[in-house]
Amino acid sequence: MQVKFVFHILSMVIFGTAITAILPLLADAISGQHEWVVFAVSAAAMGFFGGACLLATHDGRSKGISLRTAFLLTGLSWLVLPLFAALPFLDLGLSYADAIFEATSGITTTGSTVIKGLDELPPGILLWRSILQWIGGIGILVMAVVLLPFMRIGGAQLFRTESSDTSEKVEPRWSILMSNILLVYLFLTVLCGIIFWLLGMTAFDAICHAMATISTGGYSTHDASFGFFDSNALQWTATIFMLSGAVPFYVYIKAARGNTKALISDTQVRALVLLLVVVSVAMAVWLSRHNHVSFGDALTLTFFNVTSVVTTTGFASVDYTLWGTGAVGAFLILTFVGGCSGSTSGAIKIYRFQVLAQVISAHIKRLTSPHRVVPTHFNGRPLPDDVAISVLAFLTMFVATIALCTVALTFMDLDLITAYSASVTAITNVGPGLGPVVGPAGNFSSLPDGAKLLLAFAMILGRLEIFTILVIFDRGFWTD
Amino acid sequence: MQVKFVFHILSMVIFGTAITAILPLLADAISGQHEWVVFAVSAAAMGFFGGACLLATHDGRSKGISLRTAFLLTGLSWLVLPLFAALPFLDLGLSYADAIFEATSGITTTGSTVIKGLDELPPGILLWRSILQWIGGIGILVMAVVLLPFMRIGGAQLFRTESSDTSEKVEPRWSILMSNILLVYLFLTVLCGIIFWLLGMTAFDAICHAMATISTGGYSTHDASFGFFDSNALQWTATIFMLSGAVPFYVYIKAARGNTKALISDTQVRALVLLLVVVSVAMAVWLSRHNHVSFGDALTLTFFNVTSVVTTTGFASVDYTLWGTGAVGAFLILTFVGGCSGSTSGAIKIYRFQVLAQVISAHIKRLTSPHRVVPTHFNGRPLPDDVAISVLAFLTMFVATIALCTVALTFMDLDLITAYSASVTAITNVGPGLGPVVGPAGNFSSLPDGAKLLLAFAMILGRLEIFTILVIFDRGFWTD
Repeated sequence: MQVKFVFHILSMVIFGTAITAILPLLADAISGQHEWVVFAVSAAAMGFFGGACLLATHDGRSKGISLRTAFLLTGLSWLVLPLFAALPFLDLGLSYADAIFEATSGITTTGSTVIKGLDELPPGILLWRSILQWIGGIGILVMAVVLLPFMRIGGAQLFRTESSDTSEKVEPRWSILMSNILLVYLFLTVLCGIIFWLLGMTAFDAICHAMATISTGGYSTHDASFGFFDSNALQWTATIFMLSGAVPFYVYIKAARGNTKALISDTQVRALVLLLVVVSVAMAVWLSRHNHVSFGDALTLTFFNVTSVVTTTGFASVDYTLWGTGAVGAFLILTFVGGCSGSTSGAIKIYRFQVLAQVISAHIKRLTSPHRVVPTHFNGRPLPDDVAISVLAFLTMFVATIALCTVALTFMDLDLITAYSASVTAITNVGPGLGPVVGPAGNFSSLPDGAKLLLAFAMILGRLEIFTILVIFDRGFWTD
Repeated sequence: MQVKFVFHILSMVIFGTAITAILPLLADAISGQHEWVVFAVSAAAMGFFGGACLLATHDGRSKGISLRTAFLLTGLSWLVLPLFAALPFLDLGLSYADAIFEATSGITTTGSTVIKGLDELPPGILLWRSILQWIGGIGILVMAVVLLPFMRIGGAQLFRTESSDTSEKVEPRWSILMSNILLVYLFLTVLCGIIFWLLGMTAFDAICHAMATISTGGYSTHDASFGFFDSNALQWTATIFMLSGAVPFYVYIKAARGNTKALISDTQVRALVLLLVVVSVAMAVWLSRHNHVSFGDALTLTFFNVTSVVTTTGFASVDYTLWGTGAVGAFLILTFVGGCSGSTSGAIKIYRFQVLAQVISAHIKRLTSPHRVVPTHFNGRPLPDDVAISVLAFLTMFVATIALCTVALTFMDLDLITAYSASVTAITNVGPGLGPVVGPAGNFSSLPDGAKLLLAFAMILGRLEIFTILVIFDRGFWTD
C-alpha cells in the first residue's frame, strides 16, 4: 500500500484548502469585518499542518496508483478534509460537531445547514460555505469521471470507455481530461454568476449562488434560499444551471471537440430531461388545480424545485411540503433519483435506473424461459456481465444504509419522518428533508450532536457511493 | 398454455372454499345467530360458480404442469379467490372494496383489518376470518415448498434440492410431500389450540387464534388482539407457535423421519432464533429502563411483539409504538425481515439476508482484487450463480414496489407515515403499520376505497414475492 503517497496527496488537498481560505479572508477584510482574523488563523492552521505533512512525505510521490491506494485516498480525503474545513465555523459559536456537519454538508455538496440567520452573517463565512461546495464539486468530478469507473463502484465501470474513448477524440490521459473538465466547470460557474448578476442579484450573491448551483450543492446566502429573490427569471436560470451541473461532464468535452450532438444523444441526459419535464409539468397541472397558483407560476415553481431535488442541489424557492401529502410523497421519491454519472450530482443516478430496467426485464423473461439468452444494452452497447451485480448491490446497500441510519436516529429521539428523511437527504446529498425540523423551511441545528455526526458520515458514504468506504472495513483490504 | 387446466384448478379452489364456509354456517346456527343465512348464500354462490366451472373444464385435467401454467395458476388463484371469499363480509355493511380488503388480508395472512368492534360480532364471521388465514397458510406452504423453488422466484431455487432431497429421505414426490406438510400444519394447529384452551381461552377463541397463529396471519377475535387476554403464559405460547409457523416446514418432516437435529442445524432457523433473542432481549433491557415495566414483563412483551412482527403474524399485545421513537424505528425495520423460506411467513425472509451478506462480502473483496475467485455458500453448499441476481433483483423490486405504493397512497391524501407504513405492512404481509390510523392500535377502515384496493393488491404482490405477478405483465409471457 502506498501509504506515504496517500498522505502526500492528502496534505496537498489540505494545503490547497488553506490557500482558498484567503478568499473569504479578503472578502471580510475588504468589507471591514473583523472576522477576517478567523480565516487568517484557519488558513495558517491548515497551511502549517498541510505544509508540514507535504514536506514530511515529499519522497512519497508516485507515478502510478494502485487500486487499493485509490480507495484509501478517496475515502480518507473526504473523511479528513471536513475536519479542517470546519475550523472557520467555530467562530459562529457552533460546537465542533456542528462545524463538522456544516463543512461536510458543504464539501459533499449536500447543502443541509445548521446555521440560522444567514442574512446577517459577514460575507467571509458565506463565501467559505460556497467555496467548500465548489471545491467539493471538483472533487466529485475527479472521482466520478476518473476514480469510480477505475474502481468499478456501483456499475461505474460502464463509463470506463466513455470517458477515455479515443475514437471520439476525448483525450485518454486523465490529467488532460481533468483539466478540460475543470475548464468547463469554471466556465459554467462564471457564466451562471454573470447571468445571476445581470438578472438582479448583488455581485456577492451571484458569485456564491453560482458556485452552489454548478456544484449542485445548494448553500444559499439567505435563510429563504432562492425564495429570497422572488424572481421567475432567476429561478429559470438556476434551473438550467443546476441541470448543467447534473449532466455527464464528458459530453461537454465531446461537444467542444465538434461532436455537437453529444449532449442530446446521450442516453442519460435524454432520460433526465424527459423525467424533469414530465414530472414538473404533471406537478404544475396538479398544483395549479389544487392551490391558487397560475399555471405559469406553477411551472416555474415545479421546474425549479423538482430540478433542485433531482439534481441533488437542494435549493428551495418555497416550502413545497405545504402543497399537500402527494407532493410530500413525490418529493421524497424524487430525492432518490439523482442526476447523471460523471456529474456533480449524488443519489442513485439515472444510469442505474436504466441498467435496472434492463436487468429486471431480462430477469423476468428468463423466469419463464430459463434457457433463453436475453441481450441487455446501455447507450447502444452491450452491458458487461458484472454491471448487473454492481448496480443491484449498490441499490441494495443504498437502501440498507438508509434503513440503518434511520433506526439509529430514532434511538436518538428523532421522530420517524425526521429520522427517515434526514437519512435519505444526507445519503443522497440533496439537502432538505421533510417535516418541521429538517424540511425545506427547517434547519438541522436542533438535532443532537450524535445525529449530526452520523448524518455527516452518511453524506460522505452517499457521496462516495458507499462501496468506496465499505472496502476499507473489509479485513482483506489491509492484510492480503 | 394450459388455460383450461388453470381454470379447472381455480374452480376446485373456489369449490373447496365453498365447502369450508359450512363451518361458520354451523357456528352461527348452533349459537342461534341468524347470520348463518349469509354463509348459506355465500357457500351456495361459490359452490354454484365453482361447481359449474369445474364441470365445464373437466376435460382440462393434466398430468404435467408447464412453468408458465404454474405462474398463471398461482397469480390467478390469489387474485380471484378474495373476490369470492369477500362475500360473507358484505353482511356487516362493508362496501365490496372493504370486503375484498378484509378477505385479501385474510388469505394472504397479512392480518390488517377494516372491521371495528370484533368483540361484538357473531361467531360465524370471526371463524370465517380465521379460516381464510388458515387456508391462506396452506396455499403459501404449497407455493413456498413446491412452486417458488420450481419457478426460481427471488432465489428460491436454493431450496429445490432441500425440499426434494432423497438422500435425506424426504419423499421427492410433491403430492406426498404436500400431504406430509399438511399433516404437520394440522398437528401444530390442533396442539396450539389445545394449549390456548388449557391456558384459559374459550374453545372458540382457542380455535380461531390457533388458526391465525400457525398461519402467521394475525386475525384476532378481539379489537385488543392478544392484549385482551392479559396473560403472560398465553403470550409465550403464541410466541412459540408463531415461530413454529415461520420455520421451514421441510425440517419438521426431516425431524419426523428421524433426523432429530434437522430443526437446530438449519441455517435459517438458527439465524432467525438468534435474531429474535438478541433483538428481544436488547429491547427488553431498553424497555425496562425507559418505562415502568419489570424486566420479566418486558421480556414477555418484547419476545411476543418482536416475534409477531418478524414472523409477519401481526398480533399485538400492546401498542409498542408508544414505547418511544426508537421502538417505532426498530419495529419498522423488523417488519421487513420475515421468517424462513418454506414457511407461512412473508416479507424478505432470513435466507435472503444470508445470501445478501455473502454476495456483498464477495463483491467488496472483488472490488480491490478484481481477478480473485471468492467462494460463496449457503447451508454448507456453494451458492448457484443465478441466486445472487435473483436475490438482489427481488430486494430491489421489493423496495421499489413499496416506494411506488407509498407515493400512490400519498396522492390519495394519506400522510407519509400512514402511506409508507401501510405499504410496508401490506407488502410484507405483517398487518399493523405505524401512526394513529394504521398502527397496532388503529384500523384500516377510514382509508379511501382506492387505498384499500391498492393495499389488497400490494398484499398479493408481496405474498407472491412480486415476480410471480410481474411475469404476467411481460408481453413475452403471452406471445412467445
